[in-house]
Amino acid sequence: MEKKNQTMEQSASINLSTPIRCIVKLGGAAITCKNELETIHDENLKEVSLQLRESMNVQSPSGKILGMDWSKGAGESEISCSINDFSAVPAMDSSSFIVVHGAGSFGHFQASKSGVHKGGLNKPLVKAGFVATRISVTKLNHEIVRALAREGIPSVGVSPFSCGWSTNMRNIASADLSAMTNAIDSGFVPVTHGDAVLDDELGCTILSGDVIIRHLAAHFKPEFVVFMTDVLGVYDRPPLDSTAVLLREIEVHEDGSWSVVKPTLENISKVKTDVAAHDTTGGMETKILEAAMIARLGIDVYIVKAGTNHSLRALRGELRGNVPEDWLGTVIRFSK
Amino acid sequence: MEKKNQTMEQSASINLSTPIRCIVKLGGAAITCKNELETIHDENLKEVSLQLRESMNVQSPSGKILGMDWSKGAGESEISCSINDFSAVPAMDSSSFIVVHGAGSFGHFQASKSGVHKGGLNKPLVKAGFVATRISVTKLNHEIVRALAREGIPSVGVSPFSCGWSTNMRNIASADLSAMTNAIDSGFVPVTHGDAVLDDELGCTILSGDVIIRHLAAHFKPEFVVFMTDVLGVYDRPPLDSTAVLLREIEVHEDGSWSVVKPTLENISKVKTDVAAHDTTGGMETKILEAAMIARLGIDVYIVKAGTNHSLRALRGELRGNVPEDWLGTVIRFSK
Repeated sequence: MEKKNQTMEQSASINLSTPIRCIVKLGGAAITCKNELETIHDENLKEVSLQLRESMNVQSPSGKILGMDWSKGAGESEISCSINDFSAVPAMDSSSFIVVHGAGSFGHFQASKSGVHKGGLNKPLVKAGFVATRISVTKLNHEIVRALAREGIPSVGVSPFSCGWSTNMRNIASADLSAMTNAIDSGFVPVTHGDAVLDDELGCTILSGDVIIRHLAAHFKPEFVVFMTDVLGVYDRPPLDSTAVLLREIEVHEDGSWSVVKPTLENISKVKTDVAAHDTTGGMETKILEAAMIARLGIDVYIVKAGTNHSLRALRGELRGNVPEDWLGTVIRFSK
Repeated sequence: MEKKNQTMEQSASINLSTPIRCIVKLGGAAITCKNELETIHDENLKEVSLQLRESMNVQSPSGKILGMDWSKGAGESEISCSINDFSAVPAMDSSSFIVVHGAGSFGHFQASKSGVHKGGLNKPLVKAGFVATRISVTKLNHEIVRALAREGIPSVGVSPFSCGWSTNMRNIASADLSAMTNAIDSGFVPVTHGDAVLDDELGCTILSGDVIIRHLAAHFKPEFVVFMTDVLGVYDRPPLDSTAVLLREIEVHEDGSWSVVKPTLENISKVKTDVAAHDTTGGMETKILEAAMIARLGIDVYIVKAGTNHSLRALRGELRGNVPEDWLGTVIRFSK
């Protein structure tokens, strides 16, 4: 409890020169091929990166994209980067974003096989699983940072474990945000992720991207939060069910309960969702709960399908007033 | 100045449950192909990882290596990890090591093309170079963590920038070691590296692996420090020169000056070394100076050729008393 208070005190001193416009969660299901181990959904990731660039106003006066991933391509001996393109460019300011991503088909296998989320670092299998999980999720983080950098987004990878974030019985116990704050103030876009972390009680556990989002939202107070997923939004039952109904607007009440405002169907009382067997950090229900907790802070949350026109409009902040009829997704708001 | 004092105060409270046995620097030249962009010297890295395993006493009772890199291999659809091997294994303790690596053919290109080390984050080229440099060095970090994990070493990547480490006019201004301390206390081997970091005055710069080693040595007080390089040790002139003489023992004096004790040659007064044009963090002379500063703390420093019997003996701590005649390398010690 004392630790928790410390964290809250630290947060009080966060003073960004530019407020955060948006915290965006790239759901694991949206950017990886969920049923193919450690495989990125390149097409989706490319599209998501394009949309992020567009909504962050990252652009050079010539309209040219100034790529920042100067890595050697596979089979190449030279690095291609057009350094001359930068010479005539004035200093650029992009809107402040933070990107958080899930693990999808990275990390979950390693975590669930070893039981990292249950703790017990004195067991060799758990310790090995911790190492293996971190290798897998940081690999994904690296690829996402590269994809964003290729679009000219000044992205920097920031791993919770490396930052010294830790939990106590799976709740965030310590999460110093000064590194992230300084990165943002210097014009970078931090890219963080669900990670294996140390836990004061359990030894270790998995800190999910959704819990991180809530923590970041509470401390950075962004204008809005966007969850990118692989379906249009939140449904009243598994989306593959042909009778599933998209919940367009959810209202969160002072006491933390929530109700569906739109559509006005009587039979939507309990939302049924499925949780994939290898998903160690919970499924859609966890997401709604996390989103509801963010909304209670007075921050609008949009749950959208990645790479669609709907996600682009959400990222641009077009939904901040009334939600247009032709927009498909789920808005979760605090009821005043 | 105030910041520096803060860092020193933080350091005073470092209290590891097990003292650090060794901080080892994997020189960029030893583990990458220095003249081939972004190419790891797989053979050397494998050999170095084997030697580290051996000197850390990482072993299961059956003698089997319990690999911790459960990543999918290229072209494979399944992850191979023998989870059953772990079931009968009791808790293992390995000696505490910290691994720091240089960049070699990773990062230097990106840093020098953009001038990241000179600062000026308001210039788009520098900002892009910062992002590109981090992508390149964290890629190398990832591969080294994997190589060590494959040998059963519980390695975890820890990036200086992600940890919030920063500099002031290139000197370390803030470097909270709590994340690393907790990782070590939980039985992990932190693997950190030279990185692009924020600088209070310059905006940004490059923090070299050698400066990091000195900082870690001062705070963690290891029994000894090993620098792995691509030549046998420190020579009196560039090692490719056929008349170059290996300096076997260097003594560091109270005032920071140093002298060659062995061999006793009169003409060794000034050590001439070469600095590769793309090396933005200094060459062998920087290394001697950094090593001398560590030695002044009373910590022996061994500079050895990676992957040789000499490096293995150094890692095992065999040189702590008298240096055997058949051992080739450079010992740098404080003269009492």
